Amino acid sequence: MDCGSSGQAKNGVSAAVISVGDELMLGQTQDTNAKWLAGQFTLRGVLVREFRTVHDDLEAIESVLRELSARHDFLVMTGGLGPTDDDLTREALRRAMDVVEPLEVDAPALAALDMWFKDRGRPMTANNSLQALRPKGARCLENSLGTAPGLYAHIGRAHIWCLPGPPREMECMFETQVAPHLPHCVMATAAVHSFGQGESFLAQVLGQRMSRQSNPLIGTTASGSIVSARIRAVDAAANPQSMESVMQEIERLWAPYAFGRDQETLAGALGKLLVSRGERVSLAESCTGGLAGSFITAISGSSEWFSGAAVTYANGAKTDLLQVPNELLAAHGAVSAPVALAMARGCAALLKTQWSASITGIAGPGGGSETKPVGQVFIGICGPRFETVKKFHYPGDRASIRDRAAKSALALLRFALLGQEAFAAPMIWESK
Amino acid sequence: MDCGSSGQAKNGVSAAVISVGDELMLGQTQDTNAKWLAGQFTLRGVLVREFRTVHDDLEAIESVLRELSARHDFLVMTGGLGPTDDDLTREALRRAMDVVEPLEVDAPALAALDMWFKDRGRPMTANNSLQALRPKGARCLENSLGTAPGLYAHIGRAHIWCLPGPPREMECMFETQVAPHLPHCVMATAAVHSFGQGESFLAQVLGQRMSRQSNPLIGTTASGSIVSARIRAVDAAANPQSMESVMQEIERLWAPYAFGRDQETLAGALGKLLVSRGERVSLAESCTGGLAGSFITAISGSSEWFSGAAVTYANGAKTDLLQVPNELLAAHGAVSAPVALAMARGCAALLKTQWSASITGIAGPGGGSETKPVGQVFIGICGPRFETVKKFHYPGDRASIRDRAAKSALALLRFALLGQEAFAAPMIWESK
Repeated sequence: MDCGSSGQAKNGVSAAVISVGDELMLGQTQDTNAKWLAGQFTLRGVLVREFRTVHDDLEAIESVLRELSARHDFLVMTGGLGPTDDDLTREALRRAMDVVEPLEVDAPALAALDMWFKDRGRPMTANNSLQALRPKGARCLENSLGTAPGLYAHIGRAHIWCLPGPPREMECMFETQVAPHLPHCVMATAAVHSFGQGESFLAQVLGQRMSRQSNPLIGTTASGSIVSARIRAVDAAANPQSMESVMQEIERLWAPYAFGRDQETLAGALGKLLVSRGERVSLAESCTGGLAGSFITAISGSSEWFSGAAVTYANGAKTDLLQVPNELLAAHGAVSAPVALAMARGCAALLKTQWSASITGIAGPGGGSETKPVGQVFIGICGPRFETVKKFHYPGDRASIRDRAAKSALALLRFALLGQEAFAAPMIWESK
Repeated sequence: MDCGSSGQAKNGVSAAVISVGDELMLGQTQDTNAKWLAGQFTLRGVLVREFRTVHDDLEAIESVLRELSARHDFLVMTGGLGPTDDDLTREALRRAMDVVEPLEVDAPALAALDMWFKDRGRPMTANNSLQALRPKGARCLENSLGTAPGLYAHIGRAHIWCLPGPPREMECMFETQVAPHLPHCVMATAAVHSFGQGESFLAQVLGQRMSRQSNPLIGTTASGSIVSARIRAVDAAANPQSMESVMQEIERLWAPYAFGRDQETLAGALGKLLVSRGERVSLAESCTGGLAGSFITAISGSSEWFSGAAVTYANGAKTDLLQVPNELLAAHGAVSAPVALAMARGCAALLKTQWSASITGIAGPGGGSETKPVGQVFIGICGPRFETVKKFHYPGDRASIRDRAAKSALALLRFALLGQEAFAAPMIWESK
């Protein structure tokens, strides 16, 4: 199995993923199966060329099975295997296979269903027993987590797996009963994540390295203000160094904004730095109201380097908890550089940490003024021989202002730990 | 425009939704745009017959535009409008439109881009200016939240809108510049949200009201432990009362778990109760690390009823900030009913609020033991003449344990404000 730099399988091995369900097409339910399955195929060097979603409609399901089995090697269809009238995958598969006999009972599947209900002390309904039906020539796949067996069949050269819709059942069945029949993993994928600059600036920095003809192939994506370089290499096993060297080059070009790889988060990167120095951090949050703390504590083991946060939403809380002088609040307002600095200082003292960051700003939509518009946020950083405030102006709505402010505080702490040069690097939302 | 209760468009007006991006097809990014768009079309009685997802590949995008424009009235394509080389939607649209001239600059779009960068004091790169290109005969759509203009064109009878991939930009552009050209909403939809019981229990409570033959049609969905009844009525304008009475009935049947409708959140429902009584709340968070506070402060105006939170992740913080006695911590451990109660009491005193909730538990994956397993969480509630602790055992991973614990704290505060009877209602994860 081998693919070209654009991700196209050279030998033409390809897959398609089909999701079945009215609830998907009416916009009621988010399909997450297609993404998960695509990731599994990608890892194995098999390109998913098409995602399709169809209604609970016999003709639509039959037709998509016929169409896609004519041009792909692997089809995985999820959904439509339940016990109710709108579960049509079994019958549609029979028709697409040109099997004239009606669906037949799969004895082992029926026995397994029977056992499933016995184990739970519940009666098996007639509807449930329909789930043990399959087209002649197809095979039932055991479902260890639910009642719907899967189905395997082939039409022409296409291998077809029909899996249950619930993600846990689908993933388990794929791993145990589909993956062993697929090519081994050959595609290496990796990501380098950054925060603090825009996608177009960061893409420009990469320049020709993003050419569509390269191998590894580099692309950028942005999600929640995290801009990531996604790297995809074929034959990475033959040349594992190249993937690593590409990542290092991106990290160098994107310094200090690049903070981690793959599953790493901004908070995790901060934690690593703190742990390596044996130092701890605390937070003083106003407009973010605990969001930065929730990012940190999402990481298992963060108690090693995070002591806590003072969420001082009301002015009184800033005074009572953080010893911010009333006069400072009166003179400058809660959203100001002096108050941000006093919050960070007070927080480090209160929670007895070497480092502390404070966040105070106007998240909107109300509360803005000409001199302090919605989106204006001050972030204070205190550390050993280090004390400063940066001013930001974030665009967007309340949720994105808060998200960016919380992430900026973590990024600034990381910059401060890296040293003066990193801290001097401008962030895209900084304002004078 | 009119639809049957199954959502099928009687007159055959149909739509297709296309998502563009390698990151989607490689399984790196979850597409949420297709679901959102499908929901919008459904509201307007337009059936989305196909979802397609394609690679950043010129031929693939061109071909899907040609194929789907031949059989649908409305196409919405998202993604591929960015400033980089792998953004191919503009060029693919030109080809699918059979326009021979190269892409041309749209002067107003270029001016808007220029202004966008000027406003932010940032230089516009050459890449960015590519975003103002469009095929001859197409129209640029203003993007008030980002740099990528959208595109409108038609091929044959099909109206085609190309919208940016970032969901906020896409949704805003759809609402302001696509929706006005679609049929009016004919389908009334509403939701009643609940927290604290499982979907199968709550569906059983609704019983025959959920029959697929009803109008309004009632279905249940679950997302992030919020179980919602989704109500869909055709011709609701003709009989607006029925929708309201259905919602009231569900709220009655689901009391006290039902907390709000449509866009309402658990924190918002809590805030309404507090505001009506002129009371305030504070939080003492350990394992949730600020998550409950972030839910509250996500709501604009929450400063009216929320004073702040003490995120006491380290034991020292529990002692220093909340005056939890060291002896109590030593005798019972931080995850215990006495410590939860002491945290809530200390928090109400520290932040001078009538009400306070505390959360302390084991979010995992490490740190569990036989007597205190991962998922064990104590939530303490203090209020006027009210003091109690409930013990929970949440299933799932770290993220879902934290999410459920933070929401449970808000739900318990709401129950406590509603009175003893509501507070006595069992939650599904409560343990003895």
